[in-house]
Amino acid sequence: MTAQPTSAHPDTPWVLGLDGIAYGGDYNPEQWPEEVWAEDVRLMREAGVNLVSIGIFSWALLEPEEGVFDFGWLDRVIDLLHANGIRVDLGTPTASPPAWFFATYPHTRVVDRSGTVLGFGSRGMANPSSPEYRAAAVRITTELAQRYGSHPAIALWHVHNEYGAPVSEDYSETSAAAFRSWLQARYGTLDALNAAWGTAFWGQRYGTWEHVDVPRLTPSVTNPAQRLDFARFTDHALRECFVAEREAVRAHSTIPVTTNFMAAECPAVDLWKWADEVDIVSDDHYLTAEDHRSHVGLALAADLTRSVARGKPWLLMEHSTSAVNWQPRNLAKRPGEMARNSLTHLGRGADGILFFQWRAGRRGAEKFHSAMLPHAGTGSRVFREVVQLGADLQKLAPVRGSRVRADVAILWDWESFWAQDLEWRPSVDLGHRERIRAYYDRLWQDGLTVDFAHPEDDLSGYRLVVAPASYLLTEEAGSNLDGYVAGGGTLVVGCFSGVVDQDDAVPAGGFAAFLRPALGVTVEEHAPLRAGEQVEVAWTGALAGTDPTPAGVWTEDLVLHGAEVVATYADGPLPGAPAVTRHAHGEGTGWYVSTCPSVEGLAPLLAAVYADAGLAPSGLPAELEVVRRHGDTSDYVVAVNHGAEAAELPATGTDLLTGETFAGTAKVPGGQVRVIEVAR
Amino acid sequence: MTAQPTSAHPDTPWVLGLDGIAYGGDYNPEQWPEEVWAEDVRLMREAGVNLVSIGIFSWALLEPEEGVFDFGWLDRVIDLLHANGIRVDLGTPTASPPAWFFATYPHTRVVDRSGTVLGFGSRGMANPSSPEYRAAAVRITTELAQRYGSHPAIALWHVHNEYGAPVSEDYSETSAAAFRSWLQARYGTLDALNAAWGTAFWGQRYGTWEHVDVPRLTPSVTNPAQRLDFARFTDHALRECFVAEREAVRAHSTIPVTTNFMAAECPAVDLWKWADEVDIVSDDHYLTAEDHRSHVGLALAADLTRSVARGKPWLLMEHSTSAVNWQPRNLAKRPGEMARNSLTHLGRGADGILFFQWRAGRRGAEKFHSAMLPHAGTGSRVFREVVQLGADLQKLAPVRGSRVRADVAILWDWESFWAQDLEWRPSVDLGHRERIRAYYDRLWQDGLTVDFAHPEDDLSGYRLVVAPASYLLTEEAGSNLDGYVAGGGTLVVGCFSGVVDQDDAVPAGGFAAFLRPALGVTVEEHAPLRAGEQVEVAWTGALAGTDPTPAGVWTEDLVLHGAEVVATYADGPLPGAPAVTRHAHGEGTGWYVSTCPSVEGLAPLLAAVYADAGLAPSGLPAELEVVRRHGDTSDYVVAVNHGAEAAELPATGTDLLTGETFAGTAKVPGGQVRVIEVAR
Amino acid sequence: MTAQPTSAHPDTPWVLGLDGIAYGGDYNPEQWPEEVWAEDVRLMREAGVNLVSIGIFSWALLEPEEGVFDFGWLDRVIDLLHANGIRVDLGTPTASPPAWFFATYPHTRVVDRSGTVLGFGSRGMANPSSPEYRAAAVRITTELAQRYGSHPAIALWHVHNEYGAPVSEDYSETSAAAFRSWLQARYGTLDALNAAWGTAFWGQRYGTWEHVDVPRLTPSVTNPAQRLDFARFTDHALRECFVAEREAVRAHSTIPVTTNFMAAECPAVDLWKWADEVDIVSDDHYLTAEDHRSHVGLALAADLTRSVARGKPWLLMEHSTSAVNWQPRNLAKRPGEMARNSLTHLGRGADGILFFQWRAGRRGAEKFHSAMLPHAGTGSRVFREVVQLGADLQKLAPVRGSRVRADVAILWDWESFWAQDLEWRPSVDLGHRERIRAYYDRLWQDGLTVDFAHPEDDLSGYRLVVAPASYLLTEEAGSNLDGYVAGGGTLVVGCFSGVVDQDDAVPAGGFAAFLRPALGVTVEEHAPLRAGEQVEVAWTGALAGTDPTPAGVWTEDLVLHGAEVVATYADGPLPGAPAVTRHAHGEGTGWYVSTCPSVEGLAPLLAAVYADAGLAPSGLPAELEVVRRHGDTSDYVVAVNHGAEAAELPATGTDLLTGETFAGTAKVPGGQVRVIEVAR
Repeated sequence: MTAQPTSAHPDTPWVLGLDGIAYGGDYNPEQWPEEVWAEDVRLMREAGVNLVSIGIFSWALLEPEEGVFDFGWLDRVIDLLHANGIRVDLGTPTASPPAWFFATYPHTRVVDRSGTVLGFGSRGMANPSSPEYRAAAVRITTELAQRYGSHPAIALWHVHNEYGAPVSEDYSETSAAAFRSWLQARYGTLDALNAAWGTAFWGQRYGTWEHVDVPRLTPSVTNPAQRLDFARFTDHALRECFVAEREAVRAHSTIPVTTNFMAAECPAVDLWKWADEVDIVSDDHYLTAEDHRSHVGLALAADLTRSVARGKPWLLMEHSTSAVNWQPRNLAKRPGEMARNSLTHLGRGADGILFFQWRAGRRGAEKFHSAMLPHAGTGSRVFREVVQLGADLQKLAPVRGSRVRADVAILWDWESFWAQDLEWRPSVDLGHRERIRAYYDRLWQDGLTVDFAHPEDDLSGYRLVVAPASYLLTEEAGSNLDGYVAGGGTLVVGCFSGVVDQDDAVPAGGFAAFLRPALGVTVEEHAPLRAGEQVEVAWTGALAGTDPTPAGVWTEDLVLHGAEVVATYADGPLPGAPAVTRHAHGEGTGWYVSTCPSVEGLAPLLAAVYADAGLAPSGLPAELEVVRRHGDTSDYVVAVNHGAEAAELPATGTDLLTGETFAGTAKVPGGQVRVIEVAR
Repeated sequence: MTAQPTSAHPDTPWVLGLDGIAYGGDYNPEQWPEEVWAEDVRLMREAGVNLVSIGIFSWALLEPEEGVFDFGWLDRVIDLLHANGIRVDLGTPTASPPAWFFATYPHTRVVDRSGTVLGFGSRGMANPSSPEYRAAAVRITTELAQRYGSHPAIALWHVHNEYGAPVSEDYSETSAAAFRSWLQARYGTLDALNAAWGTAFWGQRYGTWEHVDVPRLTPSVTNPAQRLDFARFTDHALRECFVAEREAVRAHSTIPVTTNFMAAECPAVDLWKWADEVDIVSDDHYLTAEDHRSHVGLALAADLTRSVARGKPWLLMEHSTSAVNWQPRNLAKRPGEMARNSLTHLGRGADGILFFQWRAGRRGAEKFHSAMLPHAGTGSRVFREVVQLGADLQKLAPVRGSRVRADVAILWDWESFWAQDLEWRPSVDLGHRERIRAYYDRLWQDGLTVDFAHPEDDLSGYRLVVAPASYLLTEEAGSNLDGYVAGGGTLVVGCFSGVVDQDDAVPAGGFAAFLRPALGVTVEEHAPLRAGEQVEVAWTGALAGTDPTPAGVWTEDLVLHGAEVVATYADGPLPGAPAVTRHAHGEGTGWYVSTCPSVEGLAPLLAAVYADAGLAPSGLPAELEVVRRHGDTSDYVVAVNHGAEAAELPATGTDLLTGETFAGTAKVPGGQVRVIEVAR
Repeated sequence: MTAQPTSAHPDTPWVLGLDGIAYGGDYNPEQWPEEVWAEDVRLMREAGVNLVSIGIFSWALLEPEEGVFDFGWLDRVIDLLHANGIRVDLGTPTASPPAWFFATYPHTRVVDRSGTVLGFGSRGMANPSSPEYRAAAVRITTELAQRYGSHPAIALWHVHNEYGAPVSEDYSETSAAAFRSWLQARYGTLDALNAAWGTAFWGQRYGTWEHVDVPRLTPSVTNPAQRLDFARFTDHALRECFVAEREAVRAHSTIPVTTNFMAAECPAVDLWKWADEVDIVSDDHYLTAEDHRSHVGLALAADLTRSVARGKPWLLMEHSTSAVNWQPRNLAKRPGEMARNSLTHLGRGADGILFFQWRAGRRGAEKFHSAMLPHAGTGSRVFREVVQLGADLQKLAPVRGSRVRADVAILWDWESFWAQDLEWRPSVDLGHRERIRAYYDRLWQDGLTVDFAHPEDDLSGYRLVVAPASYLLTEEAGSNLDGYVAGGGTLVVGCFSGVVDQDDAVPAGGFAAFLRPALGVTVEEHAPLRAGEQVEVAWTGALAGTDPTPAGVWTEDLVLHGAEVVATYADGPLPGAPAVTRHAHGEGTGWYVSTCPSVEGLAPLLAAVYADAGLAPSGLPAELEVVRRHGDTSDYVVAVNHGAEAAELPATGTDLLTGETFAGTAKVPGGQVRVIEVAR
């Protein structure tokens, strides 16, 4: 028999057999004697677990020798879970080939940029361009799909694990050949490649395809266009591996397929492209433990995941119940923090909350990673909170399938990040991630829900588009933003944007030339600041009277082409020069911010921008995070109080967790979450 | 003829032919024309030198071509020394094979973890697993033993030099094969290896021995059990090299054999095992020049050396008269500091004080290392102090053979350090060396003499056992500590102890499970602090009223199993939770400290612990270091005043250095040392 | 026809065909379509450009396949420039061989010290010892020389580019063989090499030449004499490459030859030797943008360039109009800064001011480097300033050929720097560059013009010689300084000087033994300070009453051999000991400074030294930099005001830039430059 999908939106594939919120985690029964399995399943039921991911690192057990398969233990685990009503997210184990694979095919081992061949004894796939790896991955995937493709326990296919991590780029000869083929397909002629890579610079012109190589370590800085193309190629090669496995699955199974992204953390894959390839988007997210505002980073990651899923509900495939093990200082989560984290993800679109991992592993590199069932066992705080969360999620079944809507979009483009992160940029202090996070945090504090979007997406549905860091911006993207503003949109662009085109080349017309129609400015010269140096931004025009704002890292010498000056530099390298501009263009307005204000410094600026966009801050207490999911008949207001004091929220409806009803105002206790069903 | 041993304890082998304290250093006559040798020997006699180490780096001169030997110059040096009554510590030169060796056997060169083959032109032995190296080392050693094994000048064999430095681990194919053989001997079956290494994690299971490799650089973190075993293997391979040379010596000589350890500094060798293999323990010690309390580090190293020697007198084989040359800032010693350093070593059990080196070398990598005879010659402060020290040591001949006794033991386990130093631990700020040094310094300031001990040693002779950092603790060690406490001992355990077993695996029962009987607590969860974060430890119970103690780096969430709470956290991640516990168990007590107090912060805690143990601080001035050596008929009180002001010491006896006699109180001038013979 | 040299000193070769100051920059027409070239030349004329450097990175275009040449585009560019009266500095393109070269001769790729083979896709020459590289470089150079060696457009040959950058040392087998040959020529016998390298230390003695290798990564620190010789060898190999190309040019051309040095920045080449090989010295100089006193670094570089040119006028071949692109933070120059920079170079002897580069490149690794024609085009501030500077330089034609004279010399020796920069020196905080810059800055602030000199140069023409950091000092240099002082000179030597001889060996007699005659002191022991530690230097004798001076990093324990004590240490490791000494010797005086005073702390010391030397500070405002060039009939006073306020200068003459005349006093406006012609 084949299991049937259940979904609030019948056209949207979803985890088979689950009507409510998915709950569970990675489960590694192969690390334990079988007598432990019964206890695992019993405790899973106690915790309300309804979905576990298995088999992710099991290749060496499933295929102990090349072509010899042993599925007995996996059969038994799946049957046990099925018998207990726990659904299975079945992994393909290709993120970690066995020892025999690398021994038999030693040239598939990953070669790093310095030429070091990486050995066995950790985790990590082979060179993604290796035909031997791809064949072996398809073979084990096919075996699994044939055996379990119609098994009633299986709710989802979990292909591979975190593509792009822990390493992605490979500098072997195999990759060099594959890179050449990819380049030939991209450019057609060597002249086109020479032009795009600017090989006239430093005498790099190629006379034959055979001389084109991967960007190895070189005596000085390597051609940036070559490195950018190598990043694109690497993303493509990884995606080819995924597609090959997915097709191997689909040949024998109609069960939906996912692979777990690391949306905000893995720089190697372009999820705008990847999300089109999966049936269900899923994501792994881990807090930066020492970040005092790590919950804002979490919200960003959740919004980004929902955005690459194009608004459809998604699965939080992995997060942690408490500490992780790979950061410099792995702080444990404090009581209630895991629940706040989980429900923030849910508020921002997740319909499943899973953890790495079910039971803490006693051995290996991740023994200090927290789990649903810690080393300290069922008497622990963490397990108690896990049981509580499971019970809470069962009450939230009605939320399943509802959607988040945003009036604001932030531009996000992995290709731009790849380019900006190369060497020899004007200042080591200027980072795209820091800038995006700063603008995002400002919007978070102002209570405005945000989508992320690609610069060439249709943006017309948003009242406000923010481009904190669009270093690489194509001419097409420039036209898109022009059209967006002319059509009535409000656009804010941060400094060092529109600097290069798709080839990492400065446009004819200079910096920001493609943004000139929308913004009415171009950039004559970058003027980075010294380490730690601050400048003062003095507001003028409509913002006259506002207190000056300190900014750092960066300033720019602007050329006005119609924009009005909203702020000037009071000091620094460009005293008196424009710092922030506003351009009335068509039906909309385009703002440009030529420096790096802090999150606080962005407040007066964005307040004025909101006015242009017809938006208003929520006015809620600073620590109260509120997101609304829109269902078919009800809305669900998810309110997370990150503060220690109770906070008031305007709401009329019923808290699904406590059953309390509110008419007008709900009090959210310190550290607590409410999910209030509100009639439409 | 064969020289006869002289020893206060006739069963203890000692440097042949010396009745008093050995004094001298490394001597490198091969760096100088022979006309300088006569001056050397004359000045050695002026300085009271009675023992020099020669031949340590002379392989290329002794065997200029493979199998061709030239001992003429060495004959002449030895005869000259012998004629002048200076005894010889004869080195085997195997720490630095000649150029021809590496050119003839290039695959014996050390390969580092990234695969780089290390070249010639420095110092350092070959891959310790290389059969060619071992054969060549045994051959030159055999030649030396045959020629000099009964020479009356030779007082001691100095095999090799500082095993484990400058490099120890080798990642060649030769080592991989040797590692596999060692693993087969250790585990017997591949199943046992797979179980111990936890290869079910991340899909690392091995199906054949041939696929097991040395822990090369890998895409993510390498299996920690594999790395721990590789550290054990490396230690074993080095020790095999030593044993092979020692046996080659013993085939032709009855003169005692040593090799110079670096007890507190070389992490690669497990001296608990090595000390069993040598006739006489010797040690090299160098101050950390910028450490304002470097004399405490010196005391620790001396106590550790005596402890691995199981209390027998040992030789300080190398230290420096003034600056070394390999630290970032090589501070010169101040007047009197060399004597204080030397006599501290003597006070803590050394019966010989030697230096690297006799005469400062004009050429090569260590030309800026100080010497007994500096570049500035005999008119220098350093040479004057060297002559004075030689005269002083002659007066201390009666001390020879006396023993130090300690009531306190600190646990020290190289295997645990190897394991803890691997990647992905909960906090980069928590280090075993820092913790051991903090507890040691507290005991030093309290005037309590300390032994070091292995966690599985018989500890019943100590009133107090301190385990500041026992990350790896076997079940056997846990039982040992249980028995120690139950039998009446007092135990103090520092945080992050008992975390893993011998396989770097978390015990069933969780963190500190093996310590639960002795301590009455286990650890539910680690809660590391942010960088620089401090918490306040509030004393309660018996310590109520004591000022709160700041602590840093680390806290833990404890589960009490009978222990009483002695202090709680006033703030931080675990406000109100237990910070320090005390467990009455059998006839003794077990204390647990779940955080990292500073040396000062440990004072109130250890004061309470001493009370349990029936110990008391010495009450002496803070800068006055006092250790007692126990002879057959007299004791020798070595009092080192590290302060500028004179300090008073209760003593009745005669200062061997000055001849002064004291009845009740001796005044130790600032910066000076007294060695007072006290009747038993 | 052959162009004729024009020169104020007819015996001095100069850029052909230019009577005034050269002005222009690197020009890369191959990066642009030919239709842009006409605009380039038009704008060059607008800017007063009269010299451009072309072809520097054009090998891949000029020789697209091995032995196949294409000069068509170069012919057209040269003809276009010539038709517009812009003279050509024609590059040989050998700093960046084509892709086909490295593909055909893969073993010519540079191997770094860790054994990594550096790939293609950046810039950088092949291994300089490679016969294949040398043959290919001579072939393309010969082709160029044959074709353009008599072309009337060509004013100068620009061989290669920045020899020694971006990499210089090569660790291939080819280099190892060449190194052995070079060593055989240097030492004659293996015994001599073993003696010079001190191979008796650490057992490194060589029995056959075949075992001598390049200084690869080794287990511990590599033999310093070996590394020093390898630096000498690398410099020699690079110079052989230059000479081979120069001779290829001279076989077909009488036009003068240069190669662009990086005098103050490239540590790999010994310009005292290189300057003898070129017809005209040229230099590239880039500000350290974050250095608040970067103009002092510029002045130092200019003085150094003039000094290696032995006083002859030189060309500033490259600097930047504004930001560079390869520093951590590439600050843009502020208005007027480019002109001040340019005219400071001119004041210190440059007769040509050129930039990297004419037109900003849109693609490649240096797209963020400023240019004469920026991305923002002709409307930009930078282009306006470029046009202004071109006009100003035309007015300065009379300055051409005049000479700078200095009363003070600072010793500068690349061999000493190579030696001092090796590992295991007494303190990582002590750097020769910092010390030289500190003394230089003091002299700059005191208005004294400085030459640089080699320690073995004839110094008798200088009133004062300063040796801030002469770590390596040969016995010959010691005798030279002895003779200089005895003959009436004043010498100031900074700490850690005279430490080793040409073999990095401590002299017999100890530290500073070779300086003892001149200074009357030697150094018994180095006493480096802790990180951040400061000591107080108390003045005595003639300087008694002067406020104490703080100093840092370093102190020394001195032995007086006739010198008087001028200052003592008030604290630190050597309280009461001599800190600064003065030695009356023959007709002169020798000062020794055993610590590191700051620039300000050097003021009282150098004031006393000036008195000995018969010198006096200029007494001009602190921010007013003044240098005088001496012409045949007039002098030219170049006054650069680095301050914001106007400053007064004693002067009688005519400002060549403004035509203003002054009698007695000229006011230099803030940020401005005057060049005042003064009658002799």
